[in-house]
Amino acid sequence: MKEKVLLLYSGGLDTSVMIKWLQEQQNFDVLALTLDVGQEKNDLQRIAAKAKKLGAVKTITEDVKDKFSEEFVAQGILNDGLYLDKYPLSTSLARPLMSMEAVKFAEQNDCNIIAHGSTGKGNDQVRFEVSIKALNEDLTVIAPVREMNMNRDEEVEYAKLKNIEVPNGGKYSVDENLWGRSVEGSNIEFINEGVPEDAYKWVLPIEKSVDKPVVLSVTYSGGLPVELNEKQMPLKDLIAELNYVAGQSGIGAIDMIEDRVVGIKSHEFYECPAAITIITGHKYLESLVLSKRESQLKKFMDQQFADMVYSGLWFDPLMDHIKVFQQSINAAVNGMVKLKLYKGNIIPVGVESTNSLYDMSVSTYGKNQTFDQSKAPGFIYVFGSQTIATRKVRKKHLEEMIIKE
Amino acid sequence: MKEKVLLLYSGGLDTSVMIKWLQEQQNFDVLALTLDVGQEKNDLQRIAAKAKKLGAVKTITEDVKDKFSEEFVAQGILNDGLYLDKYPLSTSLARPLMSMEAVKFAEQNDCNIIAHGSTGKGNDQVRFEVSIKALNEDLTVIAPVREMNMNRDEEVEYAKLKNIEVPNGGKYSVDENLWGRSVEGSNIEFINEGVPEDAYKWVLPIEKSVDKPVVLSVTYSGGLPVELNEKQMPLKDLIAELNYVAGQSGIGAIDMIEDRVVGIKSHEFYECPAAITIITGHKYLESLVLSKRESQLKKFMDQQFADMVYSGLWFDPLMDHIKVFQQSINAAVNGMVKLKLYKGNIIPVGVESTNSLYDMSVSTYGKNQTFDQSKAPGFIYVFGSQTIATRKVRKKHLEEMIIKE
Amino acid sequence: MKEKVLLLYSGGLDTSVMIKWLQEQQNFDVLALTLDVGQEKNDLQRIAAKAKKLGAVKTITEDVKDKFSEEFVAQGILNDGLYLDKYPLSTSLARPLMSMEAVKFAEQNDCNIIAHGSTGKGNDQVRFEVSIKALNEDLTVIAPVREMNMNRDEEVEYAKLKNIEVPNGGKYSVDENLWGRSVEGSNIEFINEGVPEDAYKWVLPIEKSVDKPVVLSVTYSGGLPVELNEKQMPLKDLIAELNYVAGQSGIGAIDMIEDRVVGIKSHEFYECPAAITIITGHKYLESLVLSKRESQLKKFMDQQFADMVYSGLWFDPLMDHIKVFQQSINAAVNGMVKLKLYKGNIIPVGVESTNSLYDMSVSTYGKNQTFDQSKAPGFIYVFGSQTIATRKVRKKHLEEMIIKE
Amino acid sequence: MKEKVLLLYSGGLDTSVMIKWLQEQQNFDVLALTLDVGQEKNDLQRIAAKAKKLGAVKTITEDVKDKFSEEFVAQGILNDGLYLDKYPLSTSLARPLMSMEAVKFAEQNDCNIIAHGSTGKGNDQVRFEVSIKALNEDLTVIAPVREMNMNRDEEVEYAKLKNIEVPNGGKYSVDENLWGRSVEGSNIEFINEGVPEDAYKWVLPIEKSVDKPVVLSVTYSGGLPVELNEKQMPLKDLIAELNYVAGQSGIGAIDMIEDRVVGIKSHEFYECPAAITIITGHKYLESLVLSKRESQLKKFMDQQFADMVYSGLWFDPLMDHIKVFQQSINAAVNGMVKLKLYKGNIIPVGVESTNSLYDMSVSTYGKNQTFDQSKAPGFIYVFGSQTIATRKVRKKHLEEMIIKE
Repeated sequence: MKEKVLLLYSGGLDTSVMIKWLQEQQNFDVLALTLDVGQEKNDLQRIAAKAKKLGAVKTITEDVKDKFSEEFVAQGILNDGLYLDKYPLSTSLARPLMSMEAVKFAEQNDCNIIAHGSTGKGNDQVRFEVSIKALNEDLTVIAPVREMNMNRDEEVEYAKLKNIEVPNGGKYSVDENLWGRSVEGSNIEFINEGVPEDAYKWVLPIEKSVDKPVVLSVTYSGGLPVELNEKQMPLKDLIAELNYVAGQSGIGAIDMIEDRVVGIKSHEFYECPAAITIITGHKYLESLVLSKRESQLKKFMDQQFADMVYSGLWFDPLMDHIKVFQQSINAAVNGMVKLKLYKGNIIPVGVESTNSLYDMSVSTYGKNQTFDQSKAPGFIYVFGSQTIATRKVRKKHLEEMIIKE
Repeated sequence: MKEKVLLLYSGGLDTSVMIKWLQEQQNFDVLALTLDVGQEKNDLQRIAAKAKKLGAVKTITEDVKDKFSEEFVAQGILNDGLYLDKYPLSTSLARPLMSMEAVKFAEQNDCNIIAHGSTGKGNDQVRFEVSIKALNEDLTVIAPVREMNMNRDEEVEYAKLKNIEVPNGGKYSVDENLWGRSVEGSNIEFINEGVPEDAYKWVLPIEKSVDKPVVLSVTYSGGLPVELNEKQMPLKDLIAELNYVAGQSGIGAIDMIEDRVVGIKSHEFYECPAAITIITGHKYLESLVLSKRESQLKKFMDQQFADMVYSGLWFDPLMDHIKVFQQSINAAVNGMVKLKLYKGNIIPVGVESTNSLYDMSVSTYGKNQTFDQSKAPGFIYVFGSQTIATRKVRKKHLEEMIIKE
Repeated sequence: MKEKVLLLYSGGLDTSVMIKWLQEQQNFDVLALTLDVGQEKNDLQRIAAKAKKLGAVKTITEDVKDKFSEEFVAQGILNDGLYLDKYPLSTSLARPLMSMEAVKFAEQNDCNIIAHGSTGKGNDQVRFEVSIKALNEDLTVIAPVREMNMNRDEEVEYAKLKNIEVPNGGKYSVDENLWGRSVEGSNIEFINEGVPEDAYKWVLPIEKSVDKPVVLSVTYSGGLPVELNEKQMPLKDLIAELNYVAGQSGIGAIDMIEDRVVGIKSHEFYECPAAITIITGHKYLESLVLSKRESQLKKFMDQQFADMVYSGLWFDPLMDHIKVFQQSINAAVNGMVKLKLYKGNIIPVGVESTNSLYDMSVSTYGKNQTFDQSKAPGFIYVFGSQTIATRKVRKKHLEEMIIKE
Repeated sequence: MKEKVLLLYSGGLDTSVMIKWLQEQQNFDVLALTLDVGQEKNDLQRIAAKAKKLGAVKTITEDVKDKFSEEFVAQGILNDGLYLDKYPLSTSLARPLMSMEAVKFAEQNDCNIIAHGSTGKGNDQVRFEVSIKALNEDLTVIAPVREMNMNRDEEVEYAKLKNIEVPNGGKYSVDENLWGRSVEGSNIEFINEGVPEDAYKWVLPIEKSVDKPVVLSVTYSGGLPVELNEKQMPLKDLIAELNYVAGQSGIGAIDMIEDRVVGIKSHEFYECPAAITIITGHKYLESLVLSKRESQLKKFMDQQFADMVYSGLWFDPLMDHIKVFQQSINAAVNGMVKLKLYKGNIIPVGVESTNSLYDMSVSTYGKNQTFDQSKAPGFIYVFGSQTIATRKVRKKHLEEMIIKE
């Protein structure tokens, strides 16, 4: 009886080649698991049929968009999750969910091995392997791309040899889910020029974006978006709609040079129209309802979160502590933000909240202000005292040093 | 003989009223000091003449644009200085310089008192008073607006009474220098609507901005921009040119709800086309030349810097330590960034540096890659070990707890 | 009818003088509130009688040791709360509780004013006033010592005049509760010598401390000490017992130069035998059960906590978020620590926990070790790669610069 | 002609076995490099002779105590370098120096390989390999202990077989240099008991330590100790003397559970009498001369430093930036600290500095105080305002929520 391996199967070239390789080179029985996390090509039945045709002994498919949006993306929102202040962690957030599903089905199907399609120089191998092992240390994880050590050309050759369909024009390496689209490779690897237009898909380049401002409102409750234009909708639908609308307005294209977990700098392109819009609105609302101290500590926590999720540490117990902190602080993040989307810009055009700390009667320079200005000199006296004293002492010390010499 | 007071005189309504008030209500001799920090209305002679006419016993004027750009704004660039990740600290950076000049001229002219035009509920009073006291603790600082406790209407009335010209249409409270324009008050105080178009001056609203992308290059050396489109120019000129070009492309308008030093939330509007462009380019270049560890520590330092400058602590000795750190880390920030400016967007279209840490042969997914992928599993094994172990132990503990109960 | 003021009355000189001053100078009716937070002189009836005799129209007393230990000190333990890594926040933690009680009784007795005994240059005025205002912004808070502006000599004179008993030998200013004893003033203000022996009371100076090691065990559950020597006891009793035992062994004397909230450096002496012992044990246990990432983030949070509590910000909503984080992370802090107390030293002599992350089979250099050493080179290759690459690039750049010149 | 390998040779069992193994198993010519970093057994000639006898084709010896103290330990002092707040980084600081020397001699002698004696589960392999590669990426680094994968017993057997002297009683694994002594293995690996007495060597256990307080003074200049008891001496001598004196007083024994770079928790014992004394004095002096803001930022930097040095990242360019920061801030750390050493305790008994920020006339509660207490209420009003406002808003929001339900 053959050893069984559960393969995270996307339907693409890499993992299709893998089905063959795992069977023929490694003598495994392959179970193909395909998940719908909101990617565009999500005809699960067609993908499963392809796996079957390539020899998979069993195919499993599942729509996990609810789970993904409510348990993973939601944390990305509460944490204003942006790696290096830019990348909304779209792929990073999906990997732990996929690992969790893979472990579940591996256990149900008595597979001791899970195979994934990542290479040996990226982040995803780290995310898959740490997540899977954290959930079930007894499972073995293999990454055939890394172990086969084929480059793109060799892979295509092998595919042709095995009668595996090679998709047209797939010059970029792409990963998609409802929180964003990651694009790598080919011309994006050149940093001395901009990202080529053919890498864009969800976002219209500014030049081609809709030439009319779109004003919309997002209502947040406990830090999560619950209404779009005052219409309540499930998070996954709200995201889908925003991906379209904001993408049409040229919003969410991200060009960055990033530091991978494995210490490599890479040039990446992301398209995350909904993510960027939702996080921008969330932050603007936070600036209204959180105190300065809260904002500062939250920002520190946000950075921890982003770094950990990016690095594949979703299942680290530290995450639990971060989550309760963020849930507590987001309890005050309620209200509505109106945003004007226009040619790549997200412009706030109104915000309101029952938790607002903005008090016009305090801040105004006009009439009827209520801040007691006579208290300011006392504040300044105390606030500046150590700066003034330190400077004086240091200056005197310097002068004495000079006199001595 | 009357006591002498040195007044930081801008030529505007507030400080014009003050000349009268200091003379007539307080019986002081007023020396009016006017500085050119790059504001639009910088006809120093005309302003001095106005002061004279209002009764100032002496007027002093000085163009400090070089000093401002090279000693203050330069630090803002090296530190990627953005308060709350948004505001480039334009006014904040000018206040310590103005304080320094005021102290110098007060000492030269035997004035024991310095008067400034700030209110009792803003940040500027803190910046002026801490800075002046840090430089010379024996000086007295007064803020007539705060002490008079007049609101705008009363001030206008007083001005009319004293034959002081009341400027037309000055519905906003504005402060300008070459690093940016701050706009407060009037309709900006309403947070349930966007910033009104009449608050814009340096930046064209997106709808009206130039409808053609502008591609330009900024060359940085030691972290400072030294060339625009490969033409060397002094920092102040480079900034002036960028203020124009980027402003025409709709770049640099900032709407934010901010936390003032005195604990008040206020709604502010800034226009900083050059600052936003230069800092964006600087950060993009940093992402190429700094290691992840460097970036992380620098970011922490950047936040310290922004918070301190915003809070008026420029002359705190801690600043000296931050400066040497930033000078050291910026020594590697050399190279050229090409940016496409278009309708509010700053899009990187190429970057190069002799300090580049981007190595395509390492990061590529194509042929001829040099990263040793066989090392990855060892890394992941060690990197994930504590996450995996902690999770296992916690889970076991939880199970034991449940069994006990 | 006279205005009523609720006075936090300790029975000491300062607040006794205040009863007179508030009646006679300010024409108030005084209600005296005395709380037992674990100070030595806690004969509440005697203190109340004294207040009555001095003219208080009403006296209120309450034993709040349970509330203090379980709701305030407990947080100090979970957060390893040490200001500047040294001071266990004993007085700082009691102030918000006292404020809370004062507000409660003020509301119950229709007092609009609360008076406290703090000076105008210390921390306690900040703690009382921010706490009281945070709980009920409509209350007025007064600090007669600050407003009277008497120094010690004048106060004694005034006391004699009013027939108020002046305690003997009270050369130091002392505050006590079950979490520690704070001693200030007199010779402690000289920093060119050590703390004089007569400032010691709870701790025996090393020379005089018990000359025999005491070994004891503290058992923690959810981060809180629940057993001493395997005997379960309420937190307040466990603390009381440890204060005695550890104090006899010379433990818990703290000499520090600290930064007050109001920007002043002061020289302080504290005696906190139980606090130092419990926190030391707590930290040692944490080093066993928390992962490195957890420890690092917790430490950052601990510092936030200590700084906020010290600064009087107990009732800031940010505290709620810190509390849930700390509760979550402390859930793993279970186990027993054995400590040898001897002549000022706390020496760990054994630790155990069902949450232990220490795995001798992994860490040992002996036989039967299970760590896969063959993985180490892969880890080092990746872990060091950016350090190596950065150094190489910088060096090359420097050389090119030199060649150019 | 054989390939040449440069071996970091200590004279101990591990590296002696390695000489044989490298020759016989790997067919290398071995060059043995022995450095004097202040370890007790530092008879370099005897050690070199032993290497020769075992077959080394060349031996090199060097006294690097000056370099070690002035370039490495000095940074440890300026940074108050304590890993996890406890371990003074003694071994960690020596490894990069040893790597630097090894690279220098490897280059001089045309060796392409460097061998070190570390295992595959500790920190030292990381420190050596990252340091050596950072200095010269072309060198190959090997760790025979890791590659041979022998445990202690097998090693002893191999040694006997090859006629290599096996030292008596060496039950612990020990590393020494002038900044401290690290002890691992054997009974120290049990965490349910204290560190056994036979692990102590530089420090007298409290019970046996000198029963008389020793008062001494350390004078710091620019943050570095330059005088002991007002007698100027080179750093290495000052350390040597303090190691003896403080060790006799029972100071510097450190028992900790630490997190290794490779993710393992281990139980370690260190003896660092001089390091603990010097850093304690340094910190006390800092509390006198640094402002609160300076102390806080420095502490953050200190932690970065400790973590990086511990993790083998001495040659990371980020270190250069940390160094300039620390040099700048330590410029103010001048003065004399008097310390009473007694039975494991370091008690400050006086401190003085021309940079002192302690101003008794400001902080005193006695007569002639100069702090303007009337300014305090203004400070408190502003300082507490956001806490009070936030709490009020949140409470109101909660109440509205409850009413709604």
